[in-house]
Amino acid sequence: MPNQTYFLGIDGGGSKCKARLEDAQGNLLAESIAGPANPVRDRQLALSSIQQASQEAIELAGLPASTLAQTYAGIGLAGLNLPYYKNTMQEWQHPFAGLALSTDLHIACLGAHNSDSGAIVIVGTGSSAIVCKDAEQFEYGGHGFLLGDKGSGAWFGLQTVRWALESFDGIKPSSPFIEAVCRFFGCTDAAPLVEKHLASSPAEFAKLAPLVFEYAEQQDPVAAAIVQEGAAYLSALAQQLLSHKPQRLAFIGGLAHKIQPWLDEDIQHSLRAPFQSPESGAIILARKQFQVLEKAL
Amino acid sequence: MPNQTYFLGIDGGGSKCKARLEDAQGNLLAESIAGPANPVRDRQLALSSIQQASQEAIELAGLPASTLAQTYAGIGLAGLNLPYYKNTMQEWQHPFAGLALSTDLHIACLGAHNSDSGAIVIVGTGSSAIVCKDAEQFEYGGHGFLLGDKGSGAWFGLQTVRWALESFDGIKPSSPFIEAVCRFFGCTDAAPLVEKHLASSPAEFAKLAPLVFEYAEQQDPVAAAIVQEGAAYLSALAQQLLSHKPQRLAFIGGLAHKIQPWLDEDIQHSLRAPFQSPESGAIILARKQFQVLEKAL
Repeated sequence: MPNQTYFLGIDGGGSKCKARLEDAQGNLLAESIAGPANPVRDRQLALSSIQQASQEAIELAGLPASTLAQTYAGIGLAGLNLPYYKNTMQEWQHPFAGLALSTDLHIACLGAHNSDSGAIVIVGTGSSAIVCKDAEQFEYGGHGFLLGDKGSGAWFGLQTVRWALESFDGIKPSSPFIEAVCRFFGCTDAAPLVEKHLASSPAEFAKLAPLVFEYAEQQDPVAAAIVQEGAAYLSALAQQLLSHKPQRLAFIGGLAHKIQPWLDEDIQHSLRAPFQSPESGAIILARKQFQVLEKAL
Repeated sequence: MPNQTYFLGIDGGGSKCKARLEDAQGNLLAESIAGPANPVRDRQLALSSIQQASQEAIELAGLPASTLAQTYAGIGLAGLNLPYYKNTMQEWQHPFAGLALSTDLHIACLGAHNSDSGAIVIVGTGSSAIVCKDAEQFEYGGHGFLLGDKGSGAWFGLQTVRWALESFDGIKPSSPFIEAVCRFFGCTDAAPLVEKHLASSPAEFAKLAPLVFEYAEQQDPVAAAIVQEGAAYLSALAQQLLSHKPQRLAFIGGLAHKIQPWLDEDIQHSLRAPFQSPESGAIILARKQFQVLEKAL
């Protein structure tokens, strides 16, 4: 089948890059995972992770490497809402028959609703939200670890470390949760806690999130206060999405299930289960873009 | 006077390094300024700034370079409360007759009260606090831009950018202050504001602090809310200092005068004016340490 066409969907993130390969008929041929692919942090690393994931998918499907030239790729990446990073990716001399680029948010939304129309809040290491309505997309939140990402795993960890430091200073109360955090890090005063976290990545802060939820579920006052503050922000984000009257609203990401019971009740009632993965959403993106193109040819 | 002894006081900070040279009798011989000297951020740069400031002070005093070998230096640096950075500075093959090392906080406190006993809150690009009681020191706050430094210039700027981003998202209200911030950066949506601040330094965020205070003084609800949150934290810090019953309490640093009217009333009444500069405090440190040593010889 020399004229066979393939579709590759790639979801690039700060910790890994996932790829999914389908044939023209929509049959799954292979899935693969490579390293980090966040062009905001490291463009070269992102490109090499994307290439590695693509080649591996082709190989796992038992196809020759040259198949990439018959493959239409859809790729979703963080930061592609920012013109600088979008331009930098568009300059890439990619090996595909065609490349459809969008944000990680957009492909996740396409996947979650298997449609152009819907809304999602992502709650993982970071947090962000999007509404998709046909060709239009409205993004909310995100803004990164320093400036935003409230209610995310990294934010829960950061708030925890900040609270522990203020409790050592006598500015904020301690609690069984804060004591557990200090045991976790083997700290009896502020200095080692500061030293340990001066250069911590968002992913390292996010490792504390399960402990925050464990204690919040046991009504620890500090852990519950931190989770409530994050949940209030995520409820407000979801409220903004609902103002666009999307067909469906879903929460996705590693903390989606954990945060759900803490959201405002009306938001909880609005939630629908996601249909498909972000990498499937990336394939939807590629199919739409190149179907249009093929029709035009 | 081949046996003449000199004292050098150095206050090393994230943006500059200030030196003050006195003779044994306490007469001011010279003052100088060199580049950044924060060993947590860049140890080599800190050492070379310290050396440059020292040599320049000696030169300005019209003394030969070899005078450093007759000079007892007191140096205060950020991060020297952390064992790793203290060790790293103690390994330095310094050019002085003797070197007394302490934190920037400690020398600032010695200078502000011209004494071993007193308490200060520093509010500049960062924020932190210390009580000195004879040989003992109790530090509060600080913890750096990511983990702490609440109520500091950098923190006021960061809160402002975060608020502006949430107001673009419809999560928080706007105000004349937020509109002024957007004009200041020439932004009409979130993306350029995020792009501009992804890699901003604390000093760059701190540049927004005067605008925050300008609008807070005009009762702008957003600017006032940000200043009040910072001031509440600084009041709590000061309260912790007062629990040690220090002889005097002073606020120092570039924002000390601006923040004063926003502090709790009892804190405002406790404040005393600082006597001397941190670099004078560094000289007090060196005099104390090497007087003891000379007596012992």
